[in-house]
Amino acid sequence: MKKRLKSGLGRSTPDSVEVRGRNLADELIGKVSLGDFAYFELMGRLPSPQESIMFNALAVTLVEHGMTPSAIAARLTYFGAPESLQAAVAAGLLGLGDRFGGSIEQAARMLQEALGEPGGSVDIEDAAKKIVAAHRGGQIIAGLGHPTHKPVDPRTSRLFEVAAENGFAGRHVELMKGVGKAAATAYGRDLPINATGAIAAIASDMGISWRVCRGIAVMARAIGLVAHLQEEMSDPMAAEIWARVEHEASGEL
Amino acid sequence: MKKRLKSGLGRSTPDSVEVRGRNLADELIGKVSLGDFAYFELMGRLPSPQESIMFNALAVTLVEHGMTPSAIAARLTYFGAPESLQAAVAAGLLGLGDRFGGSIEQAARMLQEALGEPGGSVDIEDAAKKIVAAHRGGQIIAGLGHPTHKPVDPRTSRLFEVAAENGFAGRHVELMKGVGKAAATAYGRDLPINATGAIAAIASDMGISWRVCRGIAVMARAIGLVAHLQEEMSDPMAAEIWARVEHEASGEL
Amino acid sequence: MKKRLKSGLGRSTPDSVEVRGRNLADELIGKVSLGDFAYFELMGRLPSPQESIMFNALAVTLVEHGMTPSAIAARLTYFGAPESLQAAVAAGLLGLGDRFGGSIEQAARMLQEALGEPGGSVDIEDAAKKIVAAHRGGQIIAGLGHPTHKPVDPRTSRLFEVAAENGFAGRHVELMKGVGKAAATAYGRDLPINATGAIAAIASDMGISWRVCRGIAVMARAIGLVAHLQEEMSDPMAAEIWARVEHEASGEL
Amino acid sequence: MKKRLKSGLGRSTPDSVEVRGRNLADELIGKVSLGDFAYFELMGRLPSPQESIMFNALAVTLVEHGMTPSAIAARLTYFGAPESLQAAVAAGLLGLGDRFGGSIEQAARMLQEALGEPGGSVDIEDAAKKIVAAHRGGQIIAGLGHPTHKPVDPRTSRLFEVAAENGFAGRHVELMKGVGKAAATAYGRDLPINATGAIAAIASDMGISWRVCRGIAVMARAIGLVAHLQEEMSDPMAAEIWARVEHEASGEL
Repeated sequence: MKKRLKSGLGRSTPDSVEVRGRNLADELIGKVSLGDFAYFELMGRLPSPQESIMFNALAVTLVEHGMTPSAIAARLTYFGAPESLQAAVAAGLLGLGDRFGGSIEQAARMLQEALGEPGGSVDIEDAAKKIVAAHRGGQIIAGLGHPTHKPVDPRTSRLFEVAAENGFAGRHVELMKGVGKAAATAYGRDLPINATGAIAAIASDMGISWRVCRGIAVMARAIGLVAHLQEEMSDPMAAEIWARVEHEASGEL
Repeated sequence: MKKRLKSGLGRSTPDSVEVRGRNLADELIGKVSLGDFAYFELMGRLPSPQESIMFNALAVTLVEHGMTPSAIAARLTYFGAPESLQAAVAAGLLGLGDRFGGSIEQAARMLQEALGEPGGSVDIEDAAKKIVAAHRGGQIIAGLGHPTHKPVDPRTSRLFEVAAENGFAGRHVELMKGVGKAAATAYGRDLPINATGAIAAIASDMGISWRVCRGIAVMARAIGLVAHLQEEMSDPMAAEIWARVEHEASGEL
Repeated sequence: MKKRLKSGLGRSTPDSVEVRGRNLADELIGKVSLGDFAYFELMGRLPSPQESIMFNALAVTLVEHGMTPSAIAARLTYFGAPESLQAAVAAGLLGLGDRFGGSIEQAARMLQEALGEPGGSVDIEDAAKKIVAAHRGGQIIAGLGHPTHKPVDPRTSRLFEVAAENGFAGRHVELMKGVGKAAATAYGRDLPINATGAIAAIASDMGISWRVCRGIAVMARAIGLVAHLQEEMSDPMAAEIWARVEHEASGEL
Repeated sequence: MKKRLKSGLGRSTPDSVEVRGRNLADELIGKVSLGDFAYFELMGRLPSPQESIMFNALAVTLVEHGMTPSAIAARLTYFGAPESLQAAVAAGLLGLGDRFGGSIEQAARMLQEALGEPGGSVDIEDAAKKIVAAHRGGQIIAGLGHPTHKPVDPRTSRLFEVAAENGFAGRHVELMKGVGKAAATAYGRDLPINATGAIAAIASDMGISWRVCRGIAVMARAIGLVAHLQEEMSDPMAAEIWARVEHEASGEL
């Protein structure tokens, strides 16, 4: 009556460790880079050279965004719990929700649901207009606009360039661009595709389900958060932030 | 009177994003792999080819360990909170504490404190004996022994091979091996160096402080946890684990 | 140009600590119970005797649900990171998302949005039918149905009894009951109001915004999770769960 | 060969829910307050009136400490992930580590290990001197000293008063006071017992193991964090904190 538990990710025997059917020691360690291994974990096969460049480019874009709310939360957590670096990273990751990491997921979902299965024959221009129409009333369209990077998000240009060079500027990228144009027309102002939108479009053209797109942000940012905690160890700011916020918020100014 | 807040990790202007002083779009995206970027974030410079192979090898070893307590906790969390993948990854990372991720930190600390600054003249054999002596009374020595992988942990052999090929089998690796031998003599049984011990020794020979060694495990495992959650989406086991545990624990068997 | 940071929750001076404007040492410690203090923190005033009984009843209902996915995740996390009990509790709380804690929020939102501001004149029966109609197509209605407790959830009966005795069986409770009846008619089978639905309805009649209803579950469950970790310390099950799951999932059965 | 999983905390049948052997609906809901229920969960029996006053007093003291690093981290996390209030509370709890919640654990451990089993005959004055001697070299003694509350922590005086009135000013409280005096003599300056020290001493005299003392802080603070998030919803400060920190840290000042 029990459902059988099974996982194809990893297994160990006394003399070997396997990951997705490959021998970790013999076939992977020292031969495959971390980014390619992440692709392997997610897709079940090693990337081609083009896939490797593209996937690593997406992930690299997401590692470090400076002093974000996530990074500040991680530093404040480390201040209180220096015994568990893992908890400080976890605290930082918890903020990659609907407003941050979630926006990649939302943009990828929008594009993937509009285009349907690979090989479909949806008209890109029509699809773009429908998406914009569905967002009327001032609703934000995932993947468009940026408070700082105007008129162009430099990461977007670069990511689209890498995508074109490696064969990943497909129908989802085309649709994302179409959405940007249709939105500019509808709203009467420039709405640049932000890095989130570019990543969502390219990941979609790589065949990555929108359901795990938030995960790419999470794995990349974990790296950045470790770097923030390393900096916090030698050049701390948590106590200073705490003191200032507490002082002002409790009305002692 | 205020302490100045400053961070050298990332900054943005309207037309550029910088990470550790380099232009992200122009110099890094599409040119640097995720593993090399992680090295860059931690060490402040891009790795040499040898450093790249070695660092990626360490990280790759830590990504996927099958159905660990961390992976199970992440899957159970996702079951309850499917709206926030980031929270499920965070829950999984929280278990990388003293027993798991912490053991790399502990082993690296043991080796780095024994050898002191680079270029020191500590006698390796003496240092190894002192370490073993300090653990008398059945205390576990970080980096030694494994419940499954006997007599040899296959990851250890491979990591030491990669280290030798790339110039990272230095004094810390030598000391770790010395500790293994001294422990075998003292305890009268084989105590293989486990993957944790190998990683700690090699990371130490790469100049990575023991204070961030736990962080390498954390960043790597974040990748593996995303893969577990992707598998959980298509082939779930959380509900089944819950049902079995609840049924048995509440005495209904 | 800066927005002023301010908080009315707590402040300290050298000789006093204030919480929401009251002196903690003189007015609260030793005089107010934990549940009443929670009410005070959320509502800004101490509860009346009726409010105290009711609020404590809601919270008590949410503390302990046996070996839930949350409790298992907390125990597995503690196994890996015994140095940080707080991280194990946090891991457990992370699973109180849309499927669990979130359902109280959803039910309360449904009721509060249907009835609008206090003193409104919405017809309860109409509102109930509209809610059920909006869920056609097999969609679950928050607050109704339970896999185990049939035909009646014993907590619901008791909570509604306490509500009636203390003056909190108001329009939201009436609406929740109406939704239950309308759903039974529409679906042709009994759909008992579960504890979640009862709590959501009563909290709504107490004037608690649906936006913090999930928070009542979170604060209550934190208590239960600490108890699970205490039990795990003396009578552990994490290692056994891990061993079984790993063995079966990796195909060694 | 399998170890049997069992838990005595909660179980459900179709028509009842039991917590620690008592019927939740019939015996507990509407009859027992949240604080007393927490005591029941931890100790396995309902508290006496004196135990109830004392335990609630300890917990109440720990709920709200104003704009702590924990509260700021929770608010920043909520800003990024407004879909999961539980994650923001969890992020806040993660900071209750060695520096904050952990200090209660440390103080309680120090006292409990010094006095041994109840009914022991350790000399209090001797034990106090030994503890101070073991901390020479400027090491902080858990439970002593406070950056703001000088010369006396008002919560300490009040907690000791409640303890005396209810029969919990026992040998652990005596020892904590002895440690304070011995430290003042040894260091030549006043070192007031802080709230942490008072709570640790009283919890010890109530028979609560030091291993769960950190848990009392965790369960109490979960309440406070929900209140902070409620305030953040109506009167947000996360975006402002982020903007200020990012601006200054990236050198744009």
